[in-house]
Amino acid sequence: MSKTDQTLENTILELAARARDASLILATTDTEAKNCALMELADLIEASTETLQKENAKDLEAGKANGLTKSLLERLTLTPTRIKGMADGVRQVAALPDPVGQELERTVREDKLDIRRIRVPIGVIGIIYESRPNVTIDCAVLCLKSGNASILRGGKEAFYTNTALATLITHILEKNHLPTSAVQLIPTTDRAVLNTLLKLDEMIQCIIPRGGENLIRFVAENSTIPVIKHYKGVCNVYVDKAADHAMAEKIVVDAKCDRPSVCNAAENLLIHKDIAPELLPKMATALVEREVELRVDAEAATILTQNNIPYREVTDADWEEEYLDLILAIKIVPSLHEAINGINTFGSAHSDAIITNDENAARQFLNGIDSATVYWNASTRFTDGFEFGLGAEIGISTDKLHARGPMGLNELCSYKYVIYGNGQTRS
Amino acid sequence: MSKTDQTLENTILELAARARDASLILATTDTEAKNCALMELADLIEASTETLQKENAKDLEAGKANGLTKSLLERLTLTPTRIKGMADGVRQVAALPDPVGQELERTVREDKLDIRRIRVPIGVIGIIYESRPNVTIDCAVLCLKSGNASILRGGKEAFYTNTALATLITHILEKNHLPTSAVQLIPTTDRAVLNTLLKLDEMIQCIIPRGGENLIRFVAENSTIPVIKHYKGVCNVYVDKAADHAMAEKIVVDAKCDRPSVCNAAENLLIHKDIAPELLPKMATALVEREVELRVDAEAATILTQNNIPYREVTDADWEEEYLDLILAIKIVPSLHEAINGINTFGSAHSDAIITNDENAARQFLNGIDSATVYWNASTRFTDGFEFGLGAEIGISTDKLHARGPMGLNELCSYKYVIYGNGQTRS
Repeated sequence: MSKTDQTLENTILELAARARDASLILATTDTEAKNCALMELADLIEASTETLQKENAKDLEAGKANGLTKSLLERLTLTPTRIKGMADGVRQVAALPDPVGQELERTVREDKLDIRRIRVPIGVIGIIYESRPNVTIDCAVLCLKSGNASILRGGKEAFYTNTALATLITHILEKNHLPTSAVQLIPTTDRAVLNTLLKLDEMIQCIIPRGGENLIRFVAENSTIPVIKHYKGVCNVYVDKAADHAMAEKIVVDAKCDRPSVCNAAENLLIHKDIAPELLPKMATALVEREVELRVDAEAATILTQNNIPYREVTDADWEEEYLDLILAIKIVPSLHEAINGINTFGSAHSDAIITNDENAARQFLNGIDSATVYWNASTRFTDGFEFGLGAEIGISTDKLHARGPMGLNELCSYKYVIYGNGQTRS
Repeated sequence: MSKTDQTLENTILELAARARDASLILATTDTEAKNCALMELADLIEASTETLQKENAKDLEAGKANGLTKSLLERLTLTPTRIKGMADGVRQVAALPDPVGQELERTVREDKLDIRRIRVPIGVIGIIYESRPNVTIDCAVLCLKSGNASILRGGKEAFYTNTALATLITHILEKNHLPTSAVQLIPTTDRAVLNTLLKLDEMIQCIIPRGGENLIRFVAENSTIPVIKHYKGVCNVYVDKAADHAMAEKIVVDAKCDRPSVCNAAENLLIHKDIAPELLPKMATALVEREVELRVDAEAATILTQNNIPYREVTDADWEEEYLDLILAIKIVPSLHEAINGINTFGSAHSDAIITNDENAARQFLNGIDSATVYWNASTRFTDGFEFGLGAEIGISTDKLHARGPMGLNELCSYKYVIYGNGQTRS
């Protein structure tokens, strides 16, 4: 190991040790102290609009020089409206109930031993993310409110912006007599830090990667710390033979077209063979009018050809692809059973919907689909922390341990058993 | 890769794929069908006492030839009483409520979108364990009841016994028209299987290692599948200056001596300096009478010397050691604060107790100790699924994600959001 690597490793080790110490203090910090700091942070973010834009300009300049795409530069840009939006987001989190200390369960035994399951913070959470600078504030604030120390490792594209935001947070923590190590931004974008960070399982209790599939897979494969993740959102809508046609069209158009760039947008449409000849032409027309490219199987192709509707032939790889664009793969299925099997095979276990008026078919689908979120007669687009009433979300999990679906403050918590006795022994 | 390795890898891949298929069927299998199979399994285990003992004898013979220690051989032995105990354990699990399908939370939005969080099985659970054959039955049965498919990889010492037990399970699954791949024992004890098994994150959702720290660490470091684990139980009892002396003595003796070989037995005792001169001689005498070896710090040594009580000097390594034996490390601490810091540093975050009549001190301890289970005026020995009212346990987690402390049927479950609409869209 070179001297630079060794220095970097020591920096990360010290940072993680400080985070662990801070987490023990944060775990017993009262709600008012946390909320007060959050409200002051919101004000400071707004008051720092000019500084933040100045630092952000450095990132944008570097980004242009490095040939970032227009859409990436757009995501990276901090406008006064977006800065105000960040501040408002912080105020919303301050207004949410504090999850820490909530009693989840209680058993009082015959011998009066009183066993309570109490919600507590996870401890230290490492968040590894890409470009968008608002993630820095969102994650720091959600972790702080839930009593967790956070270690943030943002992308190099937003380095100056993230550093400026972290400086504001540190200032507020200090001013409020909270440990400044409660939120720490890793002071380098050297990828080598991840190799050190992801092995510190004695100090860091959870890693949340946010970004492209490659980043997430790298983290999952190299971490000895538990990871909560979501690779991609390949969401599916199945239109059953007993569907209301107008409702089906409305939901499919919404699921595909409302915001195609997000993970809860639909990528695949499955239609029962009995209604396809009547339903597909209408639905395909509505989608094509909204500039959706249709990638269809042979049976659907026959129907579309008869109706002069443009399409491309679907490939096997399409079914597992997250387009994040106005593209929809379409399959005609012979039965509900085939639809369920198909979605369980090529879906990403994120959000899937059935459109039907047949309650029995709906039950089979809702029970049989092995996904985080399953819908009956509604659009997949609702999978979102705000829409679910969580107040805010730190991400969406397609894992099955700990948290599944949208993750809010509760999902950033663990629990502990707190047991009150009066001298009970087992012998 | 050699041809044998390739064959082995294919065997494991096929086994995992079958488990995944079985898990989708099990997830929607009704409670009665599961319970009926469990009750029949219990009867069959009892009826097979002779066969089981015959197969067990092969393991015992091989174990003696391979020089297994007397205590390991003892743990491995199946007696008619133990076989009856296994069968009764299965009946107890059959009698527990089915966790699958329970509604955990419900939100009905203003637009009538009805969002329900429903408990569902995790899917496929891999369990990697050592010698004791009852683990085969316990794990298979808890997984089956909670709707999970299980892949069991027992230790080579119990190979014949485990195979005989697995044969009984397969027979019952078949007879009850349940997928026979719902419970699969890996048909080899070749360690190389773990390298394949632990990477199958697309088919297996959770790994639970049970055994020595080395096995657990190997699994945690090599698995890309989420792992729920517990390295060791270094449990601590802190006797505060405001403790009732008689209660303190009773609890410390219970925590250390009731069953020293288990993970919830105390390994370290911390005593506040103000009461040590009076309390320690009495407590030490009670412990020495029960043949406990005391390993003490300098201050405690002074007190014990004055009272002619035998001891050894404690080493730094002792504080983190899980003795699993009649040995207790003793430290005099200057304050509650030092006790909390000490336990958070050298404990294993399993079970820790404070003995005090001072409610304020108790609150600080219960909040400040970062462990799965914290006790006020009770013995650490209660950390156990049965004692907590979970009915049975598959293990104890010292992790913070998903499950913490004793894990029963609920902890073998995930959840999914099931959402009922009537045409809702977001646009």
